[in-house]
Amino acid sequence: MYSPTIQKLINLFSKFPTVGPRTASRFVFYLMGKKEKEVNELLAAISSLKRNVKLCSFCFNPFEPFDTAQGKPSGEFCPICSDPRRDKSLLCIISNETDLSAIEKTKKYNGLYFILGGTVSALKKADIEKLRTKELAEKIKTHPEIKEIILAINPTTEGEATALYLERLLKPFTCGEPGRTKKITRLGRGLPIGGELEYADEETLGSALKGRR
Amino acid sequence: MYSPTIQKLINLFSKFPTVGPRTASRFVFYLMGKKEKEVNELLAAISSLKRNVKLCSFCFNPFEPFDTAQGKPSGEFCPICSDPRRDKSLLCIISNETDLSAIEKTKKYNGLYFILGGTVSALKKADIEKLRTKELAEKIKTHPEIKEIILAINPTTEGEATALYLERLLKPFTCGEPGRTKKITRLGRGLPIGGELEYADEETLGSALKGRR
Amino acid sequence: MYSPTIQKLINLFSKFPTVGPRTASRFVFYLMGKKEKEVNELLAAISSLKRNVKLCSFCFNPFEPFDTAQGKPSGEFCPICSDPRRDKSLLCIISNETDLSAIEKTKKYNGLYFILGGTVSALKKADIEKLRTKELAEKIKTHPEIKEIILAINPTTEGEATALYLERLLKPFTCGEPGRTKKITRLGRGLPIGGELEYADEETLGSALKGRR
Amino acid sequence: MYSPTIQKLINLFSKFPTVGPRTASRFVFYLMGKKEKEVNELLAAISSLKRNVKLCSFCFNPFEPFDTAQGKPSGEFCPICSDPRRDKSLLCIISNETDLSAIEKTKKYNGLYFILGGTVSALKKADIEKLRTKELAEKIKTHPEIKEIILAINPTTEGEATALYLERLLKPFTCGEPGRTKKITRLGRGLPIGGELEYADEETLGSALKGRR
Repeated sequence: MYSPTIQKLINLFSKFPTVGPRTASRFVFYLMGKKEKEVNELLAAISSLKRNVKLCSFCFNPFEPFDTAQGKPSGEFCPICSDPRRDKSLLCIISNETDLSAIEKTKKYNGLYFILGGTVSALKKADIEKLRTKELAEKIKTHPEIKEIILAINPTTEGEATALYLERLLKPFTCGEPGRTKKITRLGRGLPIGGELEYADEETLGSALKGRR
Repeated sequence: MYSPTIQKLINLFSKFPTVGPRTASRFVFYLMGKKEKEVNELLAAISSLKRNVKLCSFCFNPFEPFDTAQGKPSGEFCPICSDPRRDKSLLCIISNETDLSAIEKTKKYNGLYFILGGTVSALKKADIEKLRTKELAEKIKTHPEIKEIILAINPTTEGEATALYLERLLKPFTCGEPGRTKKITRLGRGLPIGGELEYADEETLGSALKGRR
Repeated sequence: MYSPTIQKLINLFSKFPTVGPRTASRFVFYLMGKKEKEVNELLAAISSLKRNVKLCSFCFNPFEPFDTAQGKPSGEFCPICSDPRRDKSLLCIISNETDLSAIEKTKKYNGLYFILGGTVSALKKADIEKLRTKELAEKIKTHPEIKEIILAINPTTEGEATALYLERLLKPFTCGEPGRTKKITRLGRGLPIGGELEYADEETLGSALKGRR
Repeated sequence: MYSPTIQKLINLFSKFPTVGPRTASRFVFYLMGKKEKEVNELLAAISSLKRNVKLCSFCFNPFEPFDTAQGKPSGEFCPICSDPRRDKSLLCIISNETDLSAIEKTKKYNGLYFILGGTVSALKKADIEKLRTKELAEKIKTHPEIKEIILAINPTTEGEATALYLERLLKPFTCGEPGRTKKITRLGRGLPIGGELEYADEETLGSALKGRR
């Protein structure tokens, strides 16, 4: 029903996370109503994304190298990985960038991260290969200073499947010679703030009881 | 917390309709993960929007002039306004482009449209001036073939205020000399499909009773 | 898990409309916490229901005969059916008592009612026989003063099936000799207050356009 | 609008937890449609509630004494408190009966309970006096075998206020002579099953990190 240029852009916006065709069409009409200068600002911001931002060589967190003066990116590690005050013995595995932000906001974690790049619904080889599991295994092998690996994966069905896979993958590191063994942990389960016992599932409430203190 | 380039793009996406900072950051990470070719496709689609698409001189519906062969837009009217089979005596005023789509999809309307460009919450002059009320009045004055003006504005509080304003604005046209008088109508109120009498507000149910047939 | 007396009452409350086992158990604990006097008040109110309240012989609306002085119910018709100011030429068919209340609250209807006693999901004979269809046909046959029958049934899937069945049932009355023909109408469809064109289904929006005024 | 008997019963049902006037009226119409036998069954079940069920002298859990053969209740303690296999050194304080059921369903707790009888929104004396705080203090004083008191109160605003009050109330028991000191614990906080890091509040996620294992 829409003209080709509009429909093309609706299709592209529809691929954005959480966006369906209806929202995508609102985005297009929103852009239609913007002045040329504003649209150009958006275009510039999108194109500079790929140019200015790179992924940290250790944790895969997107970051902007500070030395942009020379016109080219410099430095391989993101501010978190480069921070000497961070505890290098702790590695927190999260599925994506927004989870990293969520944990940083708590100000309760001072270790390093590793962004896995997603979760897997079933343990299909093709799905697993999209995750950075090889890079993870490599990193852990070459960083003996890591003593604890925290699987901070969502306690959803997908997240559980992914965490199980990671536990299996990392098993060899948990039974090494004394002093080289790593501990694998998971986030504590329990009632969230505002939660109610009456509506909690049995496993969550059971974990909350077990984790009482 | 995010690097400047990322934050800048998050800010711009946050201005999109229905998008908050959280969703905006997911958009940015989504783009980070796309190949350069795909990002360029999006950039091209956005920049061609302003170039290829224009607003219909009559109804303000965005459309793409067909004669793009010559490299420049041609024609002033959108496919609906140019369609000789459309009934020129009916003008349906809607607040935005998505409402036009919604009505077209019903296939029950064969007249023309006029996109007002929004609704007003209070009848403040500044707000009203953002709507195309002058253009509307002008259009109606210069198109004596229009016999009925349908105010197809959402029956929300904002929409009601806007419809009341329009009724006042268009009043002069409703009491002209015989044959030049225009009728102003509104969409029928009632229970939507799946609605229940028990949960309907009194005005809606009253209208449904009055509009029975 | 609960003791027999508690479980028995939970089971009985669970049959109440909209009540599940969890809510039913809260009802029981609520009653446990009440003083004996309050529980007795509830018991008295429930037992007087069957004794004091009867169904109107015409519309099946529950009502309380006024002449309770004599210790026995008197009068066969509810206040609405007995009211001489009510328009006897209009009959509004609703599926249950709450729908009658909803329409009365609009203060836009001055005719009589007929409570059908439910809706049918499929046109199974057993389901239909639970409705007061025979009583309805009888009433209409014996009340020639009825000129319009309003099917005020929810525009849900079940309600539509029921209305279609009623239309078929009442067909004979719509094509009688002049002066004895009855009109069958339905509530107007449209957007309810607070509704939005963008989210309306096509049939509702189409009806709203058709029913414009 | 309803007749006195109906309105009276609507009013009484409206006081039931989670029930408003609309649902209450549906309850009344539901009862109207029931056969006399069924209504009598409900009346019998409600009246036997007060007669057959009593509150446990220790934990205030409603229970039905087993020796009903003699026509009078016998025994002071509920099945949980009377069960010799239960761990008498653990006392779990919950606000109401449904929370007790929720914990029992997890099958992860083998201690005793104490039903507080509610929560307090603010620490007003009048509100606190409605809770069984005196009974609680008395019980703990006279049961030296209790070693751990688990405050299993909802982590809602009300629940937090109540737990804080209880911690203050029970403080004296936590700093007695060695061997008589009691431990006070709370349920572990964390993400529930199906929860997502991205949408967790900072305190919950911080607790989940701290409680990792």
